[in-house]
Amino acid sequence: MSQIETKWSFVSAGEETPCGFSFAGIAAGLKDSKKKDLALILAPENSICSGLFTQSIVRASCVDICEQRIKKSSGRIRAILINSGQANACTGDVGIQHTLTATREVSKLLGLNEEEVLMCSTGVIGIPIKLKNLIDNLPNLVKELKINNFHNAAEAILTTDLVEKKITIETLIEGRKVKISGFAKGSGMIYPNMATMLSFLTCDVGVEKENWDRMISIAVKKSFNAISVDGETSTNDAFVAINAGKKIEEKFLSKIQSGIDIVCQSLAKNIARDGEGANCLLEVLVEGAKSNSDAIKMAKSICNSSLVKTAIHGCDPNWGRIISAAGNSGIEFKLDLVDLYIGDFQILQRGKLNQFDSDKISSYMRTKMNGKYLLEDIVLIILKLNSGRAKGTAWGCDLSKEYVEINSEYTT
Amino acid sequence: MSQIETKWSFVSAGEETPCGFSFAGIAAGLKDSKKKDLALILAPENSICSGLFTQSIVRASCVDICEQRIKKSSGRIRAILINSGQANACTGDVGIQHTLTATREVSKLLGLNEEEVLMCSTGVIGIPIKLKNLIDNLPNLVKELKINNFHNAAEAILTTDLVEKKITIETLIEGRKVKISGFAKGSGMIYPNMATMLSFLTCDVGVEKENWDRMISIAVKKSFNAISVDGETSTNDAFVAINAGKKIEEKFLSKIQSGIDIVCQSLAKNIARDGEGANCLLEVLVEGAKSNSDAIKMAKSICNSSLVKTAIHGCDPNWGRIISAAGNSGIEFKLDLVDLYIGDFQILQRGKLNQFDSDKISSYMRTKMNGKYLLEDIVLIILKLNSGRAKGTAWGCDLSKEYVEINSEYTT
Repeated sequence: MSQIETKWSFVSAGEETPCGFSFAGIAAGLKDSKKKDLALILAPENSICSGLFTQSIVRASCVDICEQRIKKSSGRIRAILINSGQANACTGDVGIQHTLTATREVSKLLGLNEEEVLMCSTGVIGIPIKLKNLIDNLPNLVKELKINNFHNAAEAILTTDLVEKKITIETLIEGRKVKISGFAKGSGMIYPNMATMLSFLTCDVGVEKENWDRMISIAVKKSFNAISVDGETSTNDAFVAINAGKKIEEKFLSKIQSGIDIVCQSLAKNIARDGEGANCLLEVLVEGAKSNSDAIKMAKSICNSSLVKTAIHGCDPNWGRIISAAGNSGIEFKLDLVDLYIGDFQILQRGKLNQFDSDKISSYMRTKMNGKYLLEDIVLIILKLNSGRAKGTAWGCDLSKEYVEINSEYTT
Repeated sequence: MSQIETKWSFVSAGEETPCGFSFAGIAAGLKDSKKKDLALILAPENSICSGLFTQSIVRASCVDICEQRIKKSSGRIRAILINSGQANACTGDVGIQHTLTATREVSKLLGLNEEEVLMCSTGVIGIPIKLKNLIDNLPNLVKELKINNFHNAAEAILTTDLVEKKITIETLIEGRKVKISGFAKGSGMIYPNMATMLSFLTCDVGVEKENWDRMISIAVKKSFNAISVDGETSTNDAFVAINAGKKIEEKFLSKIQSGIDIVCQSLAKNIARDGEGANCLLEVLVEGAKSNSDAIKMAKSICNSSLVKTAIHGCDPNWGRIISAAGNSGIEFKLDLVDLYIGDFQILQRGKLNQFDSDKISSYMRTKMNGKYLLEDIVLIILKLNSGRAKGTAWGCDLSKEYVEINSEYTT
């Protein structure tokens, strides 16, 4: 990772995003809070789009329409309209009509074919979109489209999120500056089987559709599909990635892949860190597994365990729960080969209890629960299975009373 | 169910348990609380035993020894020693030795072969049993063995449980009174893949090993494997069922099966109702599925959803979360065929929103959250898929701040 990071550098917020892309975010009266709730991304001509969507049987119709349009056009998508406030899932024919109407109006305003416009929604399930408010505000939204207006779009897609999740990185490839940007929203209903959130990536290097699909799929496995807040997959999860620009030589694709990986992992970790009621990011690294997918599956099982999550919240180095969750992952391993660490503290050595100072580990954990939202607040669990050479990482968060409060007191 | 229940009648607590079985439960100093923590079941000669155990990769050695001994002896088991306080899981060779020593001492005191004795443990993972306390108290435990001393055994296996879970039912078969008893402990780490708890069933009708195995397996699918408190499977889950007595004709086996089903379902529902921090029992019935296993899988997915559980806790008729959880079950269904009910209130009719009074449904739910431990406090969700003739039920509980409190503030 450090090797990759030296090649890509972070672009500060407010600075330039990938060439040719413009963004907008406004308040259109969809949310009762009057906060920003409508976003638009406009990609340059000849852009190539890939999308990965929720694997839930119950999908919002806008998700189906996204998938159909990307497929039908072989990725020739130009614009993405995103609303927050209403998920427009389980809304039947009305829901479909709303999506079709909204994308048609956007296409008219932008001079595009309506098949070139996607729509993604997030918010309360079962509630149709406030269509009149949305349509009335589209001209204003289009007027706001600007390069580098990333911030407003990232803000407009949030629901119960506490913070914006956005990142831009840049590098030089043969003297040419290239950039990748991503923004996302969390923060409940976060678990495997695709993005389990909304996330959008733009890149100003041209990559052919087939390569782009493959690269996006690789990145998602190691990022959005490796996080869990509460084991829930939403009806509306979507990750849409668009590239547009001059093509580069095939040999540089691995560099672009590393950039996509950085952006996706950064957004994924941000989503987990901003899990509802979360106080820390939980990072679980499984090493010495027989395959990378085994390692990620076990790491996710640990990240998703209510008993591990509550123990972390209570700063309790309850290693038994960690081992128990590993045991429930369905991945075979030999306990008497396992090394287990919490932070720098070794708990198990080849399956046997190491001498460890429980109070010191609690203190380590407590420093991460400082009530501030800091990405550095990571509780790290390392499980070395010593049975192979593969590894994988998953991310989650602690389970707090606030999670229960947020989800029992508000309709989401 | 009502037809079955008219055939079997409940025997009040303290009254007689199956003929020939004796029980004991004492405080042996394993728990710091000085509560009862050691139980013993003694079965008559010629008893037949079946057992189903945790499917976690990480199992306590006592579970392995149970399984080996039942298999090796073809179910010829006479005694079960059960301790609470320490789970004796992840304790390596020491753990194995403790189980072997404890069962050997029990066998000596009872004049049995040590292979005829099982041991089950529950409590903190990673902590060896306080063996000296246990061994020193075995003579006293054996002295306490009495018929109908069910209550003390049921009490001694509890950990964070708030109430005992026990049931005895009886019926007449051709003029002969037959009885089935069961007792169990919960109350966290409760999810599929076998019992996810400790539970013991005794029956005074002789049933051949092969039939008994099959009958126990059928009952477990519809009971212990259909409950969830928190999606966690423990290292020590065990369900052991022993029969002993005069054989009956094959044609009456279905009646015995119905009795086993009643006992297992009653204990399972009690475990879910007594889930850590729970205020109500959540019962989810899925009808009109293509197979019973599909129906149970979907019902379990709903029972296990943190977002459904927190909505129930908040008395919020958040049907979107129910449908979303159904969508994540992996079972195919058509949303536009679905009827959804919470209690008597219909929410969806063939996938379309019915006119319903949200406040009335909230009131219905609120009456179940009365802060008392009442088995009648059931929030019922019915999902009719209208795609087949199969059905299945699963049970769970609401997710409260108390669950987080219990599991973040105490080592379990």
